Amino acid sequence: MEGKSNLSFVLHKPHTVTFEERPLPRLPDEHHVLVAIHYTGICGSDVHYYTDGAIGPFVLREPMVLGHESSGTVVAAGGAVSGLRPGDRVALEPGHPCRRCPACLSGAYNLCARVRFAATPPHDGTLAGFVAAPADFCHRLPAHVSAREGALVEPLAVAVHMVRRARVGPADRVIVMGAGPVGLLCGAVARRAFGAAVVVAVDVAEGRLAAARALGAATHVYLAGTAGAGGPEAEAAAMVRLAGLEGAGGADVVLEASGAESAIQAGVHAVRPGGRYVQGGMGRPDVGFPVLALCVKEVAASGSFRYAAGDFALAVELVASGRVDVGKLVSAVVGFRRAEEAFKMVLEGRVVKVLIAGPNEEVEEEEGKGKEEQEEEQEEEQEQGQVT
Amino acid sequence: MEGKSNLSFVLHKPHTVTFEERPLPRLPDEHHVLVAIHYTGICGSDVHYYTDGAIGPFVLREPMVLGHESSGTVVAAGGAVSGLRPGDRVALEPGHPCRRCPACLSGAYNLCARVRFAATPPHDGTLAGFVAAPADFCHRLPAHVSAREGALVEPLAVAVHMVRRARVGPADRVIVMGAGPVGLLCGAVARRAFGAAVVVAVDVAEGRLAAARALGAATHVYLAGTAGAGGPEAEAAAMVRLAGLEGAGGADVVLEASGAESAIQAGVHAVRPGGRYVQGGMGRPDVGFPVLALCVKEVAASGSFRYAAGDFALAVELVASGRVDVGKLVSAVVGFRRAEEAFKMVLEGRVVKVLIAGPNEEVEEEEGKGKEEQEEEQEEEQEQGQVT
Amino acid sequence: MEGKSNLSFVLHKPHTVTFEERPLPRLPDEHHVLVAIHYTGICGSDVHYYTDGAIGPFVLREPMVLGHESSGTVVAAGGAVSGLRPGDRVALEPGHPCRRCPACLSGAYNLCARVRFAATPPHDGTLAGFVAAPADFCHRLPAHVSAREGALVEPLAVAVHMVRRARVGPADRVIVMGAGPVGLLCGAVARRAFGAAVVVAVDVAEGRLAAARALGAATHVYLAGTAGAGGPEAEAAAMVRLAGLEGAGGADVVLEASGAESAIQAGVHAVRPGGRYVQGGMGRPDVGFPVLALCVKEVAASGSFRYAAGDFALAVELVASGRVDVGKLVSAVVGFRRAEEAFKMVLEGRVVKVLIAGPNEEVEEEEGKGKEEQEEEQEEEQEQGQVT
Amino acid sequence: MEGKSNLSFVLHKPHTVTFEERPLPRLPDEHHVLVAIHYTGICGSDVHYYTDGAIGPFVLREPMVLGHESSGTVVAAGGAVSGLRPGDRVALEPGHPCRRCPACLSGAYNLCARVRFAATPPHDGTLAGFVAAPADFCHRLPAHVSAREGALVEPLAVAVHMVRRARVGPADRVIVMGAGPVGLLCGAVARRAFGAAVVVAVDVAEGRLAAARALGAATHVYLAGTAGAGGPEAEAAAMVRLAGLEGAGGADVVLEASGAESAIQAGVHAVRPGGRYVQGGMGRPDVGFPVLALCVKEVAASGSFRYAAGDFALAVELVASGRVDVGKLVSAVVGFRRAEEAFKMVLEGRVVKVLIAGPNEEVEEEEGKGKEEQEEEQEEEQEQGQVT
Repeated sequence: MEGKSNLSFVLHKPHTVTFEERPLPRLPDEHHVLVAIHYTGICGSDVHYYTDGAIGPFVLREPMVLGHESSGTVVAAGGAVSGLRPGDRVALEPGHPCRRCPACLSGAYNLCARVRFAATPPHDGTLAGFVAAPADFCHRLPAHVSAREGALVEPLAVAVHMVRRARVGPADRVIVMGAGPVGLLCGAVARRAFGAAVVVAVDVAEGRLAAARALGAATHVYLAGTAGAGGPEAEAAAMVRLAGLEGAGGADVVLEASGAESAIQAGVHAVRPGGRYVQGGMGRPDVGFPVLALCVKEVAASGSFRYAAGDFALAVELVASGRVDVGKLVSAVVGFRRAEEAFKMVLEGRVVKVLIAGPNEEVEEEEGKGKEEQEEEQEEEQEQGQVT
Repeated sequence: MEGKSNLSFVLHKPHTVTFEERPLPRLPDEHHVLVAIHYTGICGSDVHYYTDGAIGPFVLREPMVLGHESSGTVVAAGGAVSGLRPGDRVALEPGHPCRRCPACLSGAYNLCARVRFAATPPHDGTLAGFVAAPADFCHRLPAHVSAREGALVEPLAVAVHMVRRARVGPADRVIVMGAGPVGLLCGAVARRAFGAAVVVAVDVAEGRLAAARALGAATHVYLAGTAGAGGPEAEAAAMVRLAGLEGAGGADVVLEASGAESAIQAGVHAVRPGGRYVQGGMGRPDVGFPVLALCVKEVAASGSFRYAAGDFALAVELVASGRVDVGKLVSAVVGFRRAEEAFKMVLEGRVVKVLIAGPNEEVEEEEGKGKEEQEEEQEEEQEQGQVT
Repeated sequence: MEGKSNLSFVLHKPHTVTFEERPLPRLPDEHHVLVAIHYTGICGSDVHYYTDGAIGPFVLREPMVLGHESSGTVVAAGGAVSGLRPGDRVALEPGHPCRRCPACLSGAYNLCARVRFAATPPHDGTLAGFVAAPADFCHRLPAHVSAREGALVEPLAVAVHMVRRARVGPADRVIVMGAGPVGLLCGAVARRAFGAAVVVAVDVAEGRLAAARALGAATHVYLAGTAGAGGPEAEAAAMVRLAGLEGAGGADVVLEASGAESAIQAGVHAVRPGGRYVQGGMGRPDVGFPVLALCVKEVAASGSFRYAAGDFALAVELVASGRVDVGKLVSAVVGFRRAEEAFKMVLEGRVVKVLIAGPNEEVEEEEGKGKEEQEEEQEEEQEQGQVT
Repeated sequence: MEGKSNLSFVLHKPHTVTFEERPLPRLPDEHHVLVAIHYTGICGSDVHYYTDGAIGPFVLREPMVLGHESSGTVVAAGGAVSGLRPGDRVALEPGHPCRRCPACLSGAYNLCARVRFAATPPHDGTLAGFVAAPADFCHRLPAHVSAREGALVEPLAVAVHMVRRARVGPADRVIVMGAGPVGLLCGAVARRAFGAAVVVAVDVAEGRLAAARALGAATHVYLAGTAGAGGPEAEAAAMVRLAGLEGAGGADVVLEASGAESAIQAGVHAVRPGGRYVQGGMGRPDVGFPVLALCVKEVAASGSFRYAAGDFALAVELVASGRVDVGKLVSAVVGFRRAEEAFKMVLEGRVVKVLIAGPNEEVEEEEGKGKEEQEEEQEEEQEQGQVT
């Protein structure tokens, strides 16, 4: 690792970042590996820390490295590591639980109260040259999966966890509220991996609905807010009608990936009696909620938070087998020194997903692998008189 | 059945009822039995039709017999009936599903859209001398279970269904929001049948909390609204602290049996990460709801509606084995001609549960089997300076 | 229906059948439809009655019409039927449960002790011109699904039920013991509908393994008995090694569709710790069984019997969407008068699946839609020096 | 710990044991505690190593300390331990999993292939003065639970795990095959914690059936082998008839805690259609097994191995709440120097459960806390002409 940089992208306070050359991380025990970072995707929560310095109870008090959606290559392995060796390319699972609390011992390690999650204060993130991580939270990528795809395994695992929480099965009819990266991936996972027969993508932005179609993430798309008067029940009825689900009384499953109050309300109304609803989107802490509908329809509603055992493994398998083409989500790739610019691209809603190359990465910058597809989409949208 | 009356208590419009001698019901097919009614309990929904003539989409358009919580004795059985014979005493399950839709065929017959539910327009209820019912929806009572207890099997089955939906298990710590009849029974079922180690009864009325203690339905009681400022999160924290559940992060299970917005909010905040919440109480269709807490704690929240396969059977078994002493809920028993008075007693909140004897029943009226207990409770409350 | 025949294929005693013109069936109630039969597949149990006159406790005492895997067209509908009308083409679900016992009410209608199952004594089967059936057990076929495919929905539903019992999910690694019609369909369902990543087909007959490949029902095939000495554990190890599952300690799921003792034993040994095993194949009542392996690996082993709620619906959907190409299973189609010959073809192992046309069907007889594929397979096998 | 002995009971080869003063164990990391041992129960597997030096693949190659059912007091705690401190009395969970494999991460740590299990070669057991253990595998005992009861938490956790695997619920009818310590505890747990309405204890030894009654572990007892000719099906029918379960077609749940072939066979035949069977007993690797009955009844059969997350916690709670009186199982308590004698008592079948005091324990030896009860039982048995 001589000659290699551990340049890190550090947030000091809202809108104030620096690039710092930090010492190489040491392996805290023999179960860890050292990983050289290739690419890191930017997530809404990263941007939230960048603009606000806090999310709920998590408040930036010390300078913190940002970023947590990364791929890399193992460059050193502790003595007890058996499943990985230097040279292996991996997707990094960014939350490292305590392994000792009741949540961890019972398999729900995403609910561990002592988890160390990358880029959640006070824990440093992965926008750096190198990070140390427990080997079992580094998921090996097959040779034909690119490092860029590897950086998208994290949001894909979020979607996998949501779809699993919803127990989606073959021939299920699914509605996905929100067509940002996670919503898009929910649709793709439900349809291409869990056998959903119908996936309705719902969003307020037509551009995102076009992306849903391009990714194979939807059999139908519904532009939210077009049902006219009647509120969330009318919206729900419109979605259900669009997909021909009136006879069943609604969708088998609704996956909420937006966190918006209107989407939550319409979503609950769109579930059939006995159906399932999963809340993955995070927005306002409290919203108006159709609790009587939940009761009389006996909806099983679950929260979904991050990912737990097996989710990264399935996400890697879905990329490797080609069932989910995550590459299509990437709008732009920028070099490490342009990291702050990448944050601004997300802030301004200009991209579906932007990747930042690691500081040791030689990167041919792109305004989008998948740019052709995006242009095609835009043309298609223009023909329809739509505006992204 | 000569000389027997089929006098029926009929609602014509809000606050307008009559007593009508109706012809004896005929058995619609060979799977039905004819049941002579002994006792009928009054439920909030009965009272709602009495005062408003409608609940949500169910609107009274023709005169309708009220009542649906009944016990009786089989007096005639169709030719295909094998499990019951004349003389058998039964608890009546008042909703008769179609048996042919996907919900019915998959075991969720409480979600059947074509169910014929007693005293839900346009279907007549059980405040009458006789009713015809499918034999498999008449649940035989052992000899030592009284006809009065039999009339309480229906609300007990509601509680059984809620506790089952919550998958309560041994040593679980449970909070029950609302200590009306169903809430009280939820606590008793969770503790005495499903092995809950802790049951916290929560209500705004101290008298109901005393009833919870008297019924063995709670290990702790919490008077809602006493946590001071801080809103539902402070209320939740107070309940959790009372039961010593801070270390676990909250209750394993919250059973919501009130339908009140403040109870729903505090209830969701009181669930531990990875815990379960069941919405059984019905109030306003939409309430403010802590959806972010649901998401990040991965709460599994389910609606619970009426009861399905096996719930009545378990309810009968719990009464028969003495595990749940439903008799303690009965505040008053009145003769059939005093039926409207009984409705007013419920309306005015004067009783936990009032029973109306069938028109052929010779009844020694009571202002409460279990009156002694209630007096004891009142004394106890007065010593504590509480008011019911 | 004038001019139409209700010619029926009737078993009198082992090996003794007649063709009888029977009167048209009457609809027993307003929920039934009358169906004109198009095609009927022959199943092992039909053949068993033909040769032995009994299966376990079910003994032929009166002449009985054979056959239970049928498609047809509705020609009359009872007054209460809403979902079907004359002209609709349907797949027939041949077991009609009582709808009133605890098994039926709880959604496990396949366990109903009073079920009336076609061609199980004393109930007549479907090798006839017309049958009457409850409308909800007649599953409508979309226009683009052929009547021949419709006759294969029944065995497909058997496979769907097995795969559901095994809770197969995306990326699961599955081994299927036995590659007869049900085993082949299990593999196809697991892989194409439930997202299994690996399906190993296992059989003693190489021809059947070739069929597994042709149907897309397997990613790997294993010729049983080729592991050399070492018994079922060596067989299991060979399958596991073939599919690269040593690291996981075995397969996530084993679906047993042969009923053979050696397959059962190898199958249990091939499950990974914590994995699932489903017994669908029926052979000898008692076999040597590795019960200690079941215990220490905490295998979840379930029996699977026929099909229950939703299985036919999913089977129809899988055919309609093209995910499972059941047509490839059909080796031969014969006219009604050649029915006994069809039984002999199955007996002699000459066909994967043979269809018998209904007596009113004009049939262009085939020795196999899908004959080309079968020839291709045979060529392939010959190249490998294999004999079907 | 000055002046305290770490005398250890060491197995060198079959039937050859020594007492050795070993150095005090060191804490391997800051998450461990050092525990002074109070009492250790003897289990069948301990005796098996004593007589044979091996169980299946686990072969004694180096001298090994025996024993794994122990209680003790924490005497030192690593720096990262927060839930325990010196002076806390604990029940020891003897298997320490790797925390890093898929089984561990998904909550099934009992299936960890790298588990270090006390007194399973090559890992030392707990028949010593002191042991070091991870704090989260030491379960604190409330003040009113005795150290002797604490030593019985381990077999109780085995039973808890079995009953959980069987998903026993209120009013379930349960048959327990085998009335040794684990079978007795299964019955007690099913009935007193999970609400089973019926528990039939089955054994070949009448003395054990008497113990089942004394412990409250059964509502009915059946002496195996008394059904006359007819084999396992007749045995099953006799048990089912005894408990009045003919109408249901058998028991909801059968818990197999003997490992004997005849018990396994009768047990599977005694399950109702749709019921559950759990294999906890370990005997011969392969037995004759009624696989066709499993199939057509759709029995859900699971293995149960040791215990996993939450089982020890529930076991401690059941002892603490008095729901299961484990003290009644103790037939004898002996001093540490009489350890080999205790093994012989188990070998000869003279005791239900014998405890060996730790080497630093001042022990008033008993031939049974609970001696009175046992005498009462014996009198009762003699009245019935039974011999233990």
